[in-house]
Amino acid sequence: MRTFNIVTTAGPLAQQLQKKIDGKTKPLGALGQLEALAQQIALIQQTESPKLSAPQMLVFAGDHGAAKAGVSAYPQDVTWQMVENFLAGGAAINVFTRTHGLPLAVVDCGVAHDFGERAGLINCKLGAGTESYIEAPAMTAERCAQAFENAVALVTRYAESGCNVIGLGEMGIGNTASASLITHCLTDHPLEVCVGRGTGLDDAGLNRKQQLLAQALGRTGKMRDPAKVLQEFGGFEIATMVGVILAAAERRIVVLIDGFVVGAAALVACTLYPAARDYCVYCHRSAEAGHRVQLAAMQAQPLLDLGLRLGEGTGVALAWPLVKAAVAFLNDMASFASAGVSEKA
Amino acid sequence: MRTFNIVTTAGPLAQQLQKKIDGKTKPLGALGQLEALAQQIALIQQTESPKLSAPQMLVFAGDHGAAKAGVSAYPQDVTWQMVENFLAGGAAINVFTRTHGLPLAVVDCGVAHDFGERAGLINCKLGAGTESYIEAPAMTAERCAQAFENAVALVTRYAESGCNVIGLGEMGIGNTASASLITHCLTDHPLEVCVGRGTGLDDAGLNRKQQLLAQALGRTGKMRDPAKVLQEFGGFEIATMVGVILAAAERRIVVLIDGFVVGAAALVACTLYPAARDYCVYCHRSAEAGHRVQLAAMQAQPLLDLGLRLGEGTGVALAWPLVKAAVAFLNDMASFASAGVSEKA
Repeated sequence: MRTFNIVTTAGPLAQQLQKKIDGKTKPLGALGQLEALAQQIALIQQTESPKLSAPQMLVFAGDHGAAKAGVSAYPQDVTWQMVENFLAGGAAINVFTRTHGLPLAVVDCGVAHDFGERAGLINCKLGAGTESYIEAPAMTAERCAQAFENAVALVTRYAESGCNVIGLGEMGIGNTASASLITHCLTDHPLEVCVGRGTGLDDAGLNRKQQLLAQALGRTGKMRDPAKVLQEFGGFEIATMVGVILAAAERRIVVLIDGFVVGAAALVACTLYPAARDYCVYCHRSAEAGHRVQLAAMQAQPLLDLGLRLGEGTGVALAWPLVKAAVAFLNDMASFASAGVSEKA
Repeated sequence: MRTFNIVTTAGPLAQQLQKKIDGKTKPLGALGQLEALAQQIALIQQTESPKLSAPQMLVFAGDHGAAKAGVSAYPQDVTWQMVENFLAGGAAINVFTRTHGLPLAVVDCGVAHDFGERAGLINCKLGAGTESYIEAPAMTAERCAQAFENAVALVTRYAESGCNVIGLGEMGIGNTASASLITHCLTDHPLEVCVGRGTGLDDAGLNRKQQLLAQALGRTGKMRDPAKVLQEFGGFEIATMVGVILAAAERRIVVLIDGFVVGAAALVACTLYPAARDYCVYCHRSAEAGHRVQLAAMQAQPLLDLGLRLGEGTGVALAWPLVKAAVAFLNDMASFASAGVSEKA
């Protein structure tokens, strides 16, 4: 598997940035989390005057073999139907990216459907859905390596056209189940606290999901190696996102992380390369059980907490204006000196 | 004092709206608080297809006599200096409203400074700052009534030019002290939990602020009447905002509430007219102690929780894109039927 050269953004610039932030016409610390966010982005770009250029929202879609076993409240066909909805502009992610001026593309990582050539759809297909991890590894090591290669090509293409901020979203019936297995393996939290209702399972459905996932874990035994966990339980969309996060971090691109499923990709990426954490902005706290476990493991404080549990990257699209605001205050706010405002007595 | 005709927005439309929301291509309830927000705005406008038109951000500024007694970490001059900063475009509220496309105007309700005629500044001056409530009522009943008249004229002017959503922010050295007294009187919570560090008092400063406010309460004795509380402890900017909230609710205008000081105005308004609550959107949870008390009293769940404690309306400007997103999904998202997506099994 390919390796990535990812370095931490920590360094002496942080102090200069703090000084710049503290000189702005506001009480110390009064912009709360936006101050930390401005710092983070400036450190990623290693400048006191960061710029967000050619932002790009990407929704990664893939099907999961385990969906047929009944880990989701919705039939597997909803994956391709929702991709069609994205391409037609009717989904929540379309509405929110349009409202907030964020260009959107959909990446087919392995939907069990032939879309043909379509505007707005990028072909990174690794197969017609993964194998069901209840019976076999979700994907081969070769497929997983190919996901990373696809990701590098994708990120390279955007980076070369000037993009320095990428938002990640996903679509795949059954993928919260995948994310639950990954979260359990990489955080050591009990499976039960990592499994939630996904798109809306009732109690019986949740119980079945937990049993199926316990069965999958019974097949593999305890695993901690992130690459192996990804291959055993991942989706093609999750594997591709892991690669995108790593490739973006390597190029010092800001990565906007959505909820539970993108969070699982971030967990794999940051377990493989802890410095990748510096490049990830956690956009929201999902209502899906298990997301809290991920956030605690990453020591992440997300920007929004609206009880969202839709996926698609909706949390990213909704948080995007806050990211712009953080950069804008760092660049454009007056200082006490420049505005002639008296400082604290 | 003028009376307002404010009616609750509750009614049979709520069920129709829920049906419309539940038909959208997403799991039931998956957009969390945005679903409640879309409902609220649609109910205010009494339509299934609400529109936000000619939004206006207003920052209400005023000076507080009590500031001279030492309830703030900053000198009183900072009020007019910050108004100059607003007019020059350098403050946080300027940056955020510019970033998010929200027109901004400043309303001088009683700053102890002569600005003359200025672009972007609306003259609603009620005096050169209030009296210090430590020694006397902050304002006369006549001044308070005039604040409401000014507010009605202001709202009428915006409403007549097509505005149906108003954001409220404020500036006034010493006004968190005012807000603390109001919150204590109208919620019955102990003074201590209603008083915070404002712009950044240290322990000694916080102690002094608490003692001064206890002294003010000693002068008046226990009060519960919201109009009387406003007159005794309010600022000119707070009294004007109370009037703006009521006048806006009367005209079915959406009112975007910022943090602790605007929250105090909302508390007065909604204690006077409980139905006014239906028109208020709580934009963020402030880090200022006492805001939690207000939010609990109003049973409000704010949109953002970023640890902001700056005022100026920054929480409103930052939440504005979420308000737009809520309305956009209600209007523009496809339904399961229109998009041909399978429903839950």
